[in-house]
Amino acid sequence: MERHLFLFIPRDGDPAFVAPEMYDEQIREASWVDDLRLWADGEDPMELVAELADEMDLRGGRLLLDDTMWALFTQDLRETLPDATLSLASGVFDDLRMRKDEAELAALRKAGRLADEVSVEIRKLSEAAIGLTETELADEIDRRLAEGGGEDVSFETVVGSGPNGAMPHHRHGDRDIRRGDPVVLDFGAYVDHYPGDQTRTVVFAGDPSEEFEAVHEVVRDAQQAAVEAVEPGVPAEEIDRAAREVIEAAGYGDRFVHRTGHGVGLDVHEDPYIVEGNGLELEPGMVFSVEPGVYLPGEFGVRIEDLVAVTEDGCERLNDSPRTWEPL
Amino acid sequence: MERHLFLFIPRDGDPAFVAPEMYDEQIREASWVDDLRLWADGEDPMELVAELADEMDLRGGRLLLDDTMWALFTQDLRETLPDATLSLASGVFDDLRMRKDEAELAALRKAGRLADEVSVEIRKLSEAAIGLTETELADEIDRRLAEGGGEDVSFETVVGSGPNGAMPHHRHGDRDIRRGDPVVLDFGAYVDHYPGDQTRTVVFAGDPSEEFEAVHEVVRDAQQAAVEAVEPGVPAEEIDRAAREVIEAAGYGDRFVHRTGHGVGLDVHEDPYIVEGNGLELEPGMVFSVEPGVYLPGEFGVRIEDLVAVTEDGCERLNDSPRTWEPL
Repeated sequence: MERHLFLFIPRDGDPAFVAPEMYDEQIREASWVDDLRLWADGEDPMELVAELADEMDLRGGRLLLDDTMWALFTQDLRETLPDATLSLASGVFDDLRMRKDEAELAALRKAGRLADEVSVEIRKLSEAAIGLTETELADEIDRRLAEGGGEDVSFETVVGSGPNGAMPHHRHGDRDIRRGDPVVLDFGAYVDHYPGDQTRTVVFAGDPSEEFEAVHEVVRDAQQAAVEAVEPGVPAEEIDRAAREVIEAAGYGDRFVHRTGHGVGLDVHEDPYIVEGNGLELEPGMVFSVEPGVYLPGEFGVRIEDLVAVTEDGCERLNDSPRTWEPL
Repeated sequence: MERHLFLFIPRDGDPAFVAPEMYDEQIREASWVDDLRLWADGEDPMELVAELADEMDLRGGRLLLDDTMWALFTQDLRETLPDATLSLASGVFDDLRMRKDEAELAALRKAGRLADEVSVEIRKLSEAAIGLTETELADEIDRRLAEGGGEDVSFETVVGSGPNGAMPHHRHGDRDIRRGDPVVLDFGAYVDHYPGDQTRTVVFAGDPSEEFEAVHEVVRDAQQAAVEAVEPGVPAEEIDRAAREVIEAAGYGDRFVHRTGHGVGLDVHEDPYIVEGNGLELEPGMVFSVEPGVYLPGEFGVRIEDLVAVTEDGCERLNDSPRTWEPL
């Protein structure tokens, strides 16, 4: 929202909030930070920031900004602290966050199982899904994720039917699901603060085209090859290449228009990115998606995605519902 | 999301996108902009920005940033265009957006009616609401907003029961609604791209405390006084004062911890803000919320909110469902 709310975490000493007075009780409930500098509507929050900057000696310092901080707030920080150097906090935190500990892995496993369960339930709708709009099916997925213990969806649920599946980031719309339609289902929910993220491309009833069957097999093979390539010491880009080689060999290289995957943790997109040019060597505890896809504009799309956790000698899939397209 | 997507709108000439290749089809469907500079995963989007900056002569220019642009992107713009001056686009757009035209008012009226209808339906649950959790009731509100033609909720629906109502920005949780509980219901949905936003504080069944009844009357009187104060030429802060005077006179001044309102348009919070210190004179076509509240930590909160549109000689309420607390 548009009200200024900052948490300053100094290198040494105690952190402090500058926050709207109306959030007082909520912040005290949600945080152990004692030092709350509250401003009321009509007051200038940057006066509190200026005071804090003097106390914390920030005026000539280096501020690491949350990557998602709005320009509305960064512009005010620059004006109030013109001699500070501003850069991104991700430069420090990404490295800490990439390798998950056991508690994080346990949460990610739970989120993976929830996505698997809902995927299977939804696919069993079979004939009952025909005639539903994408949005109706997305609402049903969201309802089941919540019932199964999901805290919130990881991102807006994707139901891409027929040609809509060819737009990798289509969400859902009022197109109805038809017999023989390929349908991209990409969804997940947070469990214990960690997100699930799984994609299957399925047919609910009826017969899809031969080309769809062929492309689905290519994408499934590509996903399998990429998962098999995961082990400690392998550069992230090699996983991308493993998937891409299979798709290129089948003649669809120019239809695989995105990277193979992204890290998953407190954010649903974070390091490590599984992309050409990323030479970062995989380490045990890293968790990311493996999600090659082929998109034929105006026709259909196919994407198959699991989260995997790097282990000492390979990887563990955090999703394992059937990767086939046939009705369950 | 974390992929770089910029729309550059030059002062003269045609706008251009720098966008991820995977969004190609979606952007062409959603926009009339022809000039798309696409980057693939693994490529550097800032190279395209640098080229565009040369073509549009932006390097020494002034860039107006969307207020909500992430630091992740503003930092890259600063690095790529070190001699450009960056400031906020709201400095230009806010003034244009404050006065609504007839089409905008028509949409806001529809969104207001939808919020009113759902408010009445939900309050008629009466006994049936007792025992539901706040989250269950919020889901029911959201479902009815969607069924009634809402495109999306304006913000996460607020159901603040009992002491949760005393936290002005509590959303909803697993507390169940009890007999005699004051419940703050604050919600709305977009219709034709414009949001509804309405608050009522109600009791579904049973008898609330005498103090609640007294506070509810004070807040209702304060809201009425503020609405009556709205007319062209009056400074925004006068509307805040009109509400605050009533609450202060009743001895609850220090429990009214936020401004009286905010403008509503394409964003659910925008200019004009109805707050002490804002001397902006109201003009016909401005639309904002009038939402005084009193919050007693650990006990309950009361907030009553309507959107109003300034007319030639006063204002039009865009919400008009009963402002009483008694079960309908």
